[in-house]
Amino acid sequence: MFKLIDAKKRGQKLSAEAIKWMIAEYTAKKIPDYQLAAMLMAITLKGMDAQETAAITDAMVYSGRALKFNDKTVVDKHSTGGIGDKASFILAPIAACLGVKVPMIAGRGLGHTGGTVDKIECVPGFRTNLSLDDFSSQLKDKGLVLMGQTPEIAPADGLIYALRDVTATIDCIPLITASIMSKKLAEGAEGIVFDIKHGSGAFMREKKDARILAKSLIATGKRFKRQAIALLTDMNQPLGQEVGHVLEIQESILTLQGKGPKDLTDLSVELAAHMAVLAGKIKTIAEARKKALATLHDGSALNKFIELIEWQGGDSKVIKHPELLPVAPVKTVIRAPKNGYVKSFANDQIGYLLIELGGGRKTKADVLDLSVGFTMHARIGSKLKKGDAIMTIHHHAHQKDIVKEVESRFLKEVLALSASAVRAPKLITEIVRA
Amino acid sequence: MFKLIDAKKRGQKLSAEAIKWMIAEYTAKKIPDYQLAAMLMAITLKGMDAQETAAITDAMVYSGRALKFNDKTVVDKHSTGGIGDKASFILAPIAACLGVKVPMIAGRGLGHTGGTVDKIECVPGFRTNLSLDDFSSQLKDKGLVLMGQTPEIAPADGLIYALRDVTATIDCIPLITASIMSKKLAEGAEGIVFDIKHGSGAFMREKKDARILAKSLIATGKRFKRQAIALLTDMNQPLGQEVGHVLEIQESILTLQGKGPKDLTDLSVELAAHMAVLAGKIKTIAEARKKALATLHDGSALNKFIELIEWQGGDSKVIKHPELLPVAPVKTVIRAPKNGYVKSFANDQIGYLLIELGGGRKTKADVLDLSVGFTMHARIGSKLKKGDAIMTIHHHAHQKDIVKEVESRFLKEVLALSASAVRAPKLITEIVRA
Repeated sequence: MFKLIDAKKRGQKLSAEAIKWMIAEYTAKKIPDYQLAAMLMAITLKGMDAQETAAITDAMVYSGRALKFNDKTVVDKHSTGGIGDKASFILAPIAACLGVKVPMIAGRGLGHTGGTVDKIECVPGFRTNLSLDDFSSQLKDKGLVLMGQTPEIAPADGLIYALRDVTATIDCIPLITASIMSKKLAEGAEGIVFDIKHGSGAFMREKKDARILAKSLIATGKRFKRQAIALLTDMNQPLGQEVGHVLEIQESILTLQGKGPKDLTDLSVELAAHMAVLAGKIKTIAEARKKALATLHDGSALNKFIELIEWQGGDSKVIKHPELLPVAPVKTVIRAPKNGYVKSFANDQIGYLLIELGGGRKTKADVLDLSVGFTMHARIGSKLKKGDAIMTIHHHAHQKDIVKEVESRFLKEVLALSASAVRAPKLITEIVRA
Repeated sequence: MFKLIDAKKRGQKLSAEAIKWMIAEYTAKKIPDYQLAAMLMAITLKGMDAQETAAITDAMVYSGRALKFNDKTVVDKHSTGGIGDKASFILAPIAACLGVKVPMIAGRGLGHTGGTVDKIECVPGFRTNLSLDDFSSQLKDKGLVLMGQTPEIAPADGLIYALRDVTATIDCIPLITASIMSKKLAEGAEGIVFDIKHGSGAFMREKKDARILAKSLIATGKRFKRQAIALLTDMNQPLGQEVGHVLEIQESILTLQGKGPKDLTDLSVELAAHMAVLAGKIKTIAEARKKALATLHDGSALNKFIELIEWQGGDSKVIKHPELLPVAPVKTVIRAPKNGYVKSFANDQIGYLLIELGGGRKTKADVLDLSVGFTMHARIGSKLKKGDAIMTIHHHAHQKDIVKEVESRFLKEVLALSASAVRAPKLITEIVRA
């Protein structure tokens, strides 16, 4: 291991055998954390080429079980995450309606971004802790499944991610690529549509970095003969209007009813359409887009979502009647302090404000309050008059002090107004195919 | 700590307060090894400026006790180590004879280089494990003392060095500087003469790297108001003729008698002369050199060495009669396989061959055989006829197989002959003053 660290420190390339050995030994706890920590920093600063990235991805896949369906219609989506991103709940049923088999293994929220698994757990009874065998059968039989991370899938990734998280080695394209791709490969996806977000609420601030990650993911996918495509999308403001677990499930249902906000609807449709094309189910994106949209308007996507909920033990009554889901009882509206146009949001701060309210995790052990959240009434470019509603805070009566702080920080640190008109940002900023 | 790692990863400068905090917390075991390992790699790849280097040096000094003599005549030497380097045993008594107070805290050997403490322990009864109080009194009263590392001096250095040793972060100028300087500052040296070696048997292969380290050491010394000067010296072949613990002590005594090999004599005299000048005891190097040489010829340096041995409980009989020291009984001579000139030695390999014989450590736990070693009969530039002795191996009768291997590796991997004449390298290649 010393020699490998030394080689990477000097910017040398590591062989596939060396990388395989390193990941296997670390997973078996035969390499100490401090040696891998030094290696991760050397990789972060000196990089890894496409071959090395493929090798570490492969080593991480084979640290656990790898499913194989030999079915081109098994296509997943991966989003790098952002504020208010509930597109999975909409695009997965749409794609399933279009004949795609959708094998979703999703994560929990940490820091400013929420987690798909946390959000779906708003639905009473819904089981996310399936065994990998149950996951596999449900995908084969029903074509749609959603579960949480399991140590059966790429356990090396979990161990290494935890170490990266405390050693400032998260922002490393080859390691991000390996972390994402190892899980997608292990869950058996034959095609993957990536939603790589950029902007103030995304992990990647700059579009150019999002593009680099997209290219790395697609290139690694190609080495494993997986079809892949990436959409670069704007994350300078929340996706949709709602931020918070129950609020986001309610908005997802609204969107599945064809009545959702335009940005969320457009992105979900676009991602699902690309999934259908990758799966070979529909020839052109234009046709796929039309068919995807139709599943929202004819109720078939919502029905598929209700089926998913029921297959996994959830109470579908709350999907049919989303008003039954418990939203925090008190509403406090933040209003525009003056006339102006919304220039920008410090979007990640909206995630941190949600943590203040109890609706996010600072540490893995934190318990979430699923009922709190924000409803956004303005978007970048919105013209506001003094006193117009910008954001509603959904909270509990005893949270007056926290709400005061949230309001003050929102106005001081999150919202920027401009005297002159501001152009609304494009949602899908680029499509990366190779 | 996460923020500090992240900052250094981005190439940012760390504040003195941050560095002080980090070293204190790590020494108190409040920062885990894996975080410091990531930091050390980030420092190795992104560097530290002179202020940061001084700050980490200072933090390491104050992790333990720091002696202060308020005496400009307290001057030490530090060598970066090499094959056959026994100059400490000669220059320290010379410098003491010239009125310098010499506070030597020396190390043990590991890997291809030997250790001063291991070598002096050939002398029966000699105590190297003094308390720091005993060390301090002997220096004040007698002007010369030699002890091993103690956890009282810069304990952070020991902890950090151990971590660097397994994370490939040894070759980092700021960290090397802090490691060396923290110990020299803590032992109370007011002036330091550095012997920075370069070449195939040295830690620094290239003279330019040796120069960079020399400048870093001197600059850091200046920040702490310590006088310092550095000699860059050639380590492409062993210093002196003898390699191995007892053999080197015998050669040191021979040199103290004024009958030693020229390279060892010259270097010891030169380093001692610089120490005397730094200590303000003699005005010019030329005069100091003359006086230093005189201590070898009039027996005063040898007498001082005998006194040192006796002060620390050693049996000075073996100094007066070095032939009493036990050298391994069997001699095997390696002879020139053809006519030619010695072009080069893979000098570090001579150290590794000594380990094969039992005369060096692969790991800290290895027990040394002090009696084995090599006597070099040829130097770079020597003209050899086929059959001429190049090196004598001193070994035990049962070591026939090892000796065969040593001989084979020496001829194949260590020695390079040239058909045309080769110029002998200069011993002292540069003097660095700032």
